[in-house]
Amino acid sequence: MNRQMNASVAIQVLPHVDSDKEVIRIVDEVIDYIKSTGLKYYVGPCETAIEGEYEELMEIVKNCQYIAVKAGCPKVAAYVKITFAPEGGVLTIDQKVTKHHL
Amino acid sequence: MNRQMNASVAIQVLPHVDSDKEVIRIVDEVIDYIKSTGLKYYVGPCETAIEGEYEELMEIVKNCQYIAVKAGCPKVAAYVKITFAPEGGVLTIDQKVTKHHL
Amino acid sequence: MNRQMNASVAIQVLPHVDSDKEVIRIVDEVIDYIKSTGLKYYVGPCETAIEGEYEELMEIVKNCQYIAVKAGCPKVAAYVKITFAPEGGVLTIDQKVTKHHL
Amino acid sequence: MNRQMNASVAIQVLPHVDSDKEVIRIVDEVIDYIKSTGLKYYVGPCETAIEGEYEELMEIVKNCQYIAVKAGCPKVAAYVKITFAPEGGVLTIDQKVTKHHL
Repeated sequence: MNRQMNASVAIQVLPHVDSDKEVIRIVDEVIDYIKSTGLKYYVGPCETAIEGEYEELMEIVKNCQYIAVKAGCPKVAAYVKITFAPEGGVLTIDQKVTKHHL
Repeated sequence: MNRQMNASVAIQVLPHVDSDKEVIRIVDEVIDYIKSTGLKYYVGPCETAIEGEYEELMEIVKNCQYIAVKAGCPKVAAYVKITFAPEGGVLTIDQKVTKHHL
Repeated sequence: MNRQMNASVAIQVLPHVDSDKEVIRIVDEVIDYIKSTGLKYYVGPCETAIEGEYEELMEIVKNCQYIAVKAGCPKVAAYVKITFAPEGGVLTIDQKVTKHHL
Repeated sequence: MNRQMNASVAIQVLPHVDSDKEVIRIVDEVIDYIKSTGLKYYVGPCETAIEGEYEELMEIVKNCQYIAVKAGCPKVAAYVKITFAPEGGVLTIDQKVTKHHL
C-alpha cells in the first residue's frame, strides 16, 4: 500500500450497443484505459477494481464513460462502488483477493 | 428536460459509523448538499437520483463523499449508477417515476 | 413496521430490448407484479425498494426476472441491494424517505 | 459452458461488524460456502461472480446472507448483479476475464 492509497473503486461499464461482440470490444477499450493509468487494478467478470488516491480515481471513473462513448456507443451506463478513507484504512486488492487465487 | 440534461446518476452513501442515528444524520447532510446544487433530484429509500449535465453530476458524486467525511465519518462507501448519453436520450426522473406516485 | 419486517431489498430490472418504450413497458409489468405482492414498496427512478420478510423478498427478487422475460425480453439484468437483520433493525422505507417528500 | 448455464450473478456481502478483521472472517465463510456449491465462481476484490442455472444461483444468493448471519453478524447487506437469459446468451466468466489474467 503506497502513501496515497486512500480509496478504491470498482466499475462496471455497460455500453448500449446491439451485440455482445461490440460490448466486449468497447469494454476492452475501457480496460485498456484503466491499465494505462498505471494504478493497481483487478479485472473481474462484472467489474474492474482500482485502488489509489481518491481524486485520481474519481477522474478515472468519469473518463471511463468518455472512453466508451468515443469507442462507439451513443449511450453508456456504469455501476460504481466507491470506498474512501482519507486517513487510511481501505482494504487493498491484495488483502482481499490474493489468498483466493493461489 | 433542459438542454444540458445528458446524464443521470443515482447514489447511495454509506458512512462507516456505529449507530443508525449517525448514519441518518450524515446521509441527511449529503442529501442537503444535493438539494443545494439546484439540480432535479429524487430521494428514494436506498439512493438519491439526480439528473443534469455529466461533468457537473460527476463532480457532485465526488463531493458527496467529502461531505460525508466532513460530517464525521472516517470512512465512507458509495454505490453509484451512471447513465450518460452525450447526444441525449437519457430518461428523465419524471418519465420514470411520476406515474407511479399519483 | 409489522412483525415480519426483517429485511429490505431494492431492485433495478434492465430488460435487454431495443427501445426505451419497450424497456418502460416491461419494467412497468415488473412494478405491477411488485405492487401485487401487497408488500410496502417505493418506486424510484432507478430502483424499486420493498420491505418485508427475507424469504418472501428473495422470492420476489427472483420472480421479477421471470416477469421481465415473460413480458418479452430474451435476456434481463438486475441490480439488487439487500439488507437483512433476522432480529430486527432494518430501517423502514418511511424512516428513510418520508421527511424528504413532505 | 454447460447446458444449464443460463445465468450469472455477482455478489458482495457486507457484514455489519466493527472490525475489518471480522468482516474478512465472515466474508471468507461466505466465499467458502460459494466454493462448496461446485459451481464456477470468480473472487474479485468487491464481489464474487458465479455462473450456473438461474434457480440454483438465486438460492445461493439467498443463502449467502444466512451464512453471514450464522457466522456472527446481526445485520448484513448485499449488492447483487444478476444476468438471466433462459435461452442462453449469458457471457461466461472465462469469456470475460481469462484474457485479462494471462
